Amino acid sequence: MNRLNSKVLEEIVHKNADNTSRIVEQTHGYVVSENNGALVATSFDNTTAQAIVKHVHDNFLKMAQSAIRDLDPTDKLCFMRVATRKFEFLVAPDDPFTITVLL
Amino acid sequence: MNRLNSKVLEEIVHKNADNTSRIVEQTHGYVVSENNGALVATSFDNTTAQAIVKHVHDNFLKMAQSAIRDLDPTDKLCFMRVATRKFEFLVAPDDPFTITVLL
Repeated sequence: MNRLNSKVLEEIVHKNADNTSRIVEQTHGYVVSENNGALVATSFDNTTAQAIVKHVHDNFLKMAQSAIRDLDPTDKLCFMRVATRKFEFLVAPDDPFTITVLL
Repeated sequence: MNRLNSKVLEEIVHKNADNTSRIVEQTHGYVVSENNGALVATSFDNTTAQAIVKHVHDNFLKMAQSAIRDLDPTDKLCFMRVATRKFEFLVAPDDPFTITVLL
């Protein structure tokens, strides 16, 4: 992760420490990755976090973003809620990070 | 569309006529497609409906379903809300139909 991004992340994590601990208490966990796919922060074990980054952030989110752009090039994906039988994935793509929280 | 599916659809549309008109009044519209990609019912023009079936039902939804299965083969995607700058896509995959409502 480049130095600017890590500085940006440190500030965000520091500023949002209360939110982060509230999220961790009330959810299954969270994953933050850089938009190049590098895992940056998580409350999960590494294997689970890497799998979420790979399958949700890299594959599925990228396809979702391009599907929305294909439908309307002036539109942009802002947030996704994906309900499955077992969990609910809240996916917030942003720049330079994407965060997924699992309810 | 095979005869069984069209009978199933007719019954569903008939039974839900009130819901359908309420949906049409309060949303941008809806698209129903068979899971083989055939457009079955819509309140949009044909071009818009076909684009939603292609980009949302075929590409993006299929990738989402496989991403969820890759994460946990015993899990299953039930519902998606995708918020973009302009719209919100409510996507309900089922068998034999998938419906998307646009808010």
